[in-house]
Amino acid sequence: MKVLITAGGTVEKIDDVRAISNNSTGKLGQAIAEAFIKSDNLSIEKIFYICGQNAVVPLSDKIDIIRIGGVNELVTQVERILSMEQITVVIHSMAVSDYAVSSLTTKSNVANTISTCLMQEAEKDYSPVKLAAKIVDSAFDKTSTIKSNTNKISSDIDDLIIVMKKTPKVISTIKVLQPKTILVGFKLLSNVSLETLIDTGYSLLEKNSCDLVLANDLAQITEDKHVGYLISFEKTYERLETKFQIAEAITARVIDILENTKHMNEQK
Amino acid sequence: MKVLITAGGTVEKIDDVRAISNNSTGKLGQAIAEAFIKSDNLSIEKIFYICGQNAVVPLSDKIDIIRIGGVNELVTQVERILSMEQITVVIHSMAVSDYAVSSLTTKSNVANTISTCLMQEAEKDYSPVKLAAKIVDSAFDKTSTIKSNTNKISSDIDDLIIVMKKTPKVISTIKVLQPKTILVGFKLLSNVSLETLIDTGYSLLEKNSCDLVLANDLAQITEDKHVGYLISFEKTYERLETKFQIAEAITARVIDILENTKHMNEQK
Repeated sequence: MKVLITAGGTVEKIDDVRAISNNSTGKLGQAIAEAFIKSDNLSIEKIFYICGQNAVVPLSDKIDIIRIGGVNELVTQVERILSMEQITVVIHSMAVSDYAVSSLTTKSNVANTISTCLMQEAEKDYSPVKLAAKIVDSAFDKTSTIKSNTNKISSDIDDLIIVMKKTPKVISTIKVLQPKTILVGFKLLSNVSLETLIDTGYSLLEKNSCDLVLANDLAQITEDKHVGYLISFEKTYERLETKFQIAEAITARVIDILENTKHMNEQK
Repeated sequence: MKVLITAGGTVEKIDDVRAISNNSTGKLGQAIAEAFIKSDNLSIEKIFYICGQNAVVPLSDKIDIIRIGGVNELVTQVERILSMEQITVVIHSMAVSDYAVSSLTTKSNVANTISTCLMQEAEKDYSPVKLAAKIVDSAFDKTSTIKSNTNKISSDIDDLIIVMKKTPKVISTIKVLQPKTILVGFKLLSNVSLETLIDTGYSLLEKNSCDLVLANDLAQITEDKHVGYLISFEKTYERLETKFQIAEAITARVIDILENTKHMNEQK
């Protein structure tokens, strides 16, 4: 069987030296890849391992490491692999940026746009709400991006404003491209109740037809501890205490699902 | 003698999982520390080595590694060391973020602020420019920051806007705190002419009373090559081709400066 694992974090460039990054180490993805390779019940032919630029990676000649930067590159690689290869399991543990840089501007640019709009539109009979919408559209438009001769924003600019746009949800495309793959999703929250954590994890599962979701809370992740809740499609869950335990539990549950599928196919 | 080296890049937090980072590896700082330790003409007692979270670091029992996150932490550490220790040389090679996150908002928040301002101020006799300035001030005010129960921005928000403020210039404080230290500054530009590179590097030197400035251009930095121009206070410069050559040249020039200072002191 072939497996696709995404791990680490994406990096969205602001300019040639600056970027917005998700601070994921990639250790959980690494632990899962290692558990898969070691398992006697999974016969791994190849793991496509897509990861961030700084992620730690598992080492094995069965693992094909594919380093990516931003969400766009992640989308390209996931779509390429899922349309070319039959993938039995997808582990989507990468911390994917919800936002990419849309444009850069400054407070004074925005003020100029507002005053120009106020002057131009003064005669017209706009409501304040409509005029405000018009102003915002032109103030944060791509064309208002700071012009620069170089690919590094000058440090002379005061009050830099970074306008972000939503990135596509990679997880939602996986079952569309390969409906039969086993999909394990991940949800990271910060400092929420167990109920919120399980509910949010389960709604990720439902929305994206995941087979399992690992929900975890930043407040419960330290150097040597990593509490995670592995949620199944019946909304039952299992509490795990370390990255190693999480990796072992995901491996065991994936084996169960594969066995059940085989069993069901035999009964047909 | 004691030395202070800063290396790698700063990381400015947006929330608990997201950050704005400067993608510096720290390899140049590492090479300089190693050249200093190896030099027979420098008797190194200790190197205070302040570096970013992901920076590669030199290994020696003479090197005290101090990992920092954002610019605020860098300022704290530099001020602490320069006010407690007599530092003979400061190598400030860290890629320091020019901006830190001031507030977070959304396009619709900004639109709401604009329409509220338009309604409230309609009666008053503001000029468009004055009204625009008023609107910008309240739209990007800290109090307009997105309220969140958790410390992770929800991915449900559309059109996130990150408002950045300038960070303090760490390099300008070094000679203020220790006027007699030898200061080596660094200037990284992207895709500029040699003239612009030297001029910009030299104005950094003049502005901050550096003894030397290493000016380099991203377009001339690859995996195995690192072109740099080591500029002296007479505005002469030396072209170097690799990180190793840069480290050796800085070491040699620092030794020269130390010799000259000793010579001058003897003549007094």
